[in-house]
Formats: sequence, C-alpha cells, structure tokens
Amino acid sequence: MEDSKKIVLIGAGNVATHLGMGLQQSGCQILQIYSRTQKSASELAGLLKVPYTTALEEITSEADVYIVALKDSAFQDLLPYIIKGREKSLFVHTAGSLPMSMWKDAVARYGVLYPMQTFSKQRKVNLAEVSFFVEASNDEDLQMLKGMAGMLSPKVYEATSEQRKYLHLSAVFACNFSNHMYALSAYLLKQKGLPFESMLPLIDETSRKVHELSPQEAQTGPAIRNDENVMQSHLDLLADEPVLHELYEKISQSIHQIKEYDKL
Amino acid sequence: MEDSKKIVLIGAGNVATHLGMGLQQSGCQILQIYSRTQKSASELAGLLKVPYTTALEEITSEADVYIVALKDSAFQDLLPYIIKGREKSLFVHTAGSLPMSMWKDAVARYGVLYPMQTFSKQRKVNLAEVSFFVEASNDEDLQMLKGMAGMLSPKVYEATSEQRKYLHLSAVFACNFSNHMYALSAYLLKQKGLPFESMLPLIDETSRKVHELSPQEAQTGPAIRNDENVMQSHLDLLADEPVLHELYEKISQSIHQIKEYDKL
Repeated sequence: MEDSKKIVLIGAGNVATHLGMGLQQSGCQILQIYSRTQKSASELAGLLKVPYTTALEEITSEADVYIVALKDSAFQDLLPYIIKGREKSLFVHTAGSLPMSMWKDAVARYGVLYPMQTFSKQRKVNLAEVSFFVEASNDEDLQMLKGMAGMLSPKVYEATSEQRKYLHLSAVFACNFSNHMYALSAYLLKQKGLPFESMLPLIDETSRKVHELSPQEAQTGPAIRNDENVMQSHLDLLADEPVLHELYEKISQSIHQIKEYDKL
Repeated sequence: MEDSKKIVLIGAGNVATHLGMGLQQSGCQILQIYSRTQKSASELAGLLKVPYTTALEEITSEADVYIVALKDSAFQDLLPYIIKGREKSLFVHTAGSLPMSMWKDAVARYGVLYPMQTFSKQRKVNLAEVSFFVEASNDEDLQMLKGMAGMLSPKVYEATSEQRKYLHLSAVFACNFSNHMYALSAYLLKQKGLPFESMLPLIDETSRKVHELSPQEAQTGPAIRNDENVMQSHLDLLADEPVLHELYEKISQSIHQIKEYDKL
C-alpha cells in the first residue's frame, strides 16, 4: 500500500484478533480497539499495544477504515452508534453471511473483508494461507481493500454479496460437514476401542488429494464403485444407529448421483 | 526383521504395487508377481525387476509369504489355485472388508495386512504415513507381520476381523464421505463461477485441526451453534437442489445431536 492506513477494530473476538495482528505486522496502524466487554477489549489492546474503549462515544474519528468484526446478532443494534459522526469514513464488515447492502442507507463508503477460515481459540492460523473475499461500494475503496488483504495473503478474490452467500454455504459443506464426518468416524471407532489417530493419515491424504485432483476425480470407496455387497454389510453394522444408518444411505446415494452431474 | 523374507505378490494393482515397492526397499525379496492380466503383471515386474507369471500353476512355492491383493470378487475364484501345494506357507490378504476366517479351511497359516489408505493411480503415497492393521492365525506369524509392516510405517496396529470391519466403515466416513462434502462444495461453487481452490486453505485447516483437537472439539459452523437464521438462509439457497437440501438438513441435525453423545 502506498501509505500506512489507520484502522479501528470494532470487535475483539477471534477474527478481530487475527486480522488486527496481521494488519499491524503488515505496517497498518491500529489506532484503537472497541469491544463491549472490558476483558476482550483489554486483551487485544494489550496484544497490539494500542488503546481501547468499551464506550461507543469514545471511538476515535481519526481512522481511514473501521473494520467491524462483531457477532451477526450484535450488528444491527450497534450500527447507528458505530457510524455516528463518521458517515464519510470507510466501513467494512468481516461476516460471510451479511450482505454489503446493510451499510447502504447509513454511510457513503462501505465494503466487506471476509476471511474464509475456521478460527478456533486453541489454534493459531497462518493468514497467508487464508482466502480473503472483498467487496466495496466504489472502485477506489475496492482497490484499497484488495491491497490491504493482499498484504495478509496472496489469496484475495472479489466476490459480490450473492457470491459470498454461496461461498459461506460451500464452506459449510467443505469444512463443517467434512469435520462432522470425522466426528462420526471417531464415534464408531471409540465404540470398538480403536484409536481415532489411526485415521489421521487417511484424513490428511484425502485433503491433500484435492489439491491435484477434483473432488469428483479423487472419490474412492464402495459408493462410487457401486459395490452393493460392501455397502449392505456397512448398513448392517449400523442397524442400531438410525442416524448414522440414514446418513450412510443418503450420502452414498448422493455420491452415486453426482456421477450424473456435469463434470465438476 | 531378523532375516530377509521371500515374498510372492498375488495381484498387481495399486495396493500390490505400493506394498511391493515398499517391501523391496525395506530389504524383502520379492520372488515373483502373479496377475491375471499380462499388462499389469509385466508393469509391476518391470518396476521391481523380478519375474512374473499369468499362469496360476507357475506360481513359485519358494516364498515365505504370499501377499494376496486381489479385488474382493476375484478372491474366492482364485483361492483354491493360489494355495494348491503350498498349504503350509503363510497367506495374507490386504482387504479391509474380508474376514481372516476366509482362509481357515484352506491353509494352516494365514493373516491380514491391511493398509488403510485411499490409493489413486495418479498419486504416489508415502507408506510411512499409512496405518497398517495386522492379524494372524498364530502369534509367531503375527509378530512377523508386525515386523514386516513396521519396516514400512511406524503406525502398525493389531486388529481383529471384527474391528477391521469397523475400521473400514469408519474410513468410509472419514475419507469417502468427507471427500464427497468437498465435491458438493465444488458443485455449488461452480454454479456461481467461483473457484474451488479458494476452499483449499479451509479444507487443509479442517484436516490439520483434528491432529490437535477431537473432531467434536474442532466443530464450528451454524449447526453446532444452533444458528437457525443462517441454517434457514442456507436451506433457502438450496431450494432447487433437493438432494443437497436434504443432506444439509440431516447432517446439521446430526451435528446437533452428537453434542448429546458421550464426549468422543
């Protein structure tokens, strides 16, 4: 970026923490942290060595960009107070599920900076490996956001609010649902006294494979081979587990059906 | 192993190829390859620089161990010819789904060497990262198989045929079904002109996470938070996709239910 941007972080949760650290390391100036709770505000402020406030009226008006990383439910309530007296500044939010148009009637310049990742408190995330999706109300701010995200990661994409809804939905399948498949595997193993760690090489290879092959090309197992003997013996093993039995059947059918879809 | 084992490979597919290369590199002597098809027999024999045959009656009787890596459907047909005149040798198969007892009435010494991995022709697999599950009809052969697998990988476990059935079923969830979640994600993205590669950092992080956290601890997303607004908006997006709509609903319900299970 041509010059050092001045940023205020509204929110002090996982996303604000990871973004704040990354932006500061990239040379941006974090002016202030706002959070409703003293504890998270002071923690993140301490980490970044910057001032914080828990009072909406004390938010500084000096920033170039206000990055809002609040829970979706807190957003609407706080919005009027966040923008008050700063209607010409650039406001961006970080949520996958909220449309950019939510800013439309309130401020002149707005956008979205959506880092698509599964952030857990227990794990440090390398932002350079995160995909960022950006959107803005005018081209100048779009370029600025792309530049800002580009300092954090080489994986920066433009996406409309409509596209971002589908990205979020797709991420639920690729991340949340595949993790649940691991959980069901762990549940079955535990019942037979077998170690889940024995699955880790298989899980690793499954995720590595789709860097080279499309998921459809990478598909293996009884359902894609339509190996009815093996599938029936698996369903028999799940006779006392109605939820798993149904999922096994439905997912196997879907694997078989996806062969008919256009090549992905 | 105390001395170099002499091995005959019955079958020349992916599993036989990966095992044969690994065992030869570990100092085992591959005496011969048998395959019904000239092409695969000669390919693997060329790779390992050993003799091959496509005639069952030409299989040598000099081996310590016969490793049978055939398709399940070919097994029963070929079994009588494979063992003929070698009833006192050690026979092992590599399939997750077949019980060890299939050898019981045919030979005196038998076992299983099951490498749990998703083998694709297009990808080289590092055997040192594969979990091997072994079983044998007597303790001496069990120790020998553990030693042999141990030369290929540090991840060697004993498993009964009953346990192996559940390992195979669990692997279907952890590997085949999680890959299908990637495929559904790719399908949704493609419809909106979005790149599947944008999901790769998320997929990688999702698989890395369960090395440190249990899958249940690692679970994120609207279903585990019971965020009904987001789930409903996702179901609305899937209104024209009945298969995906149903899977989204069923898997989300299962994520919610697993909270009630014993901690995994």
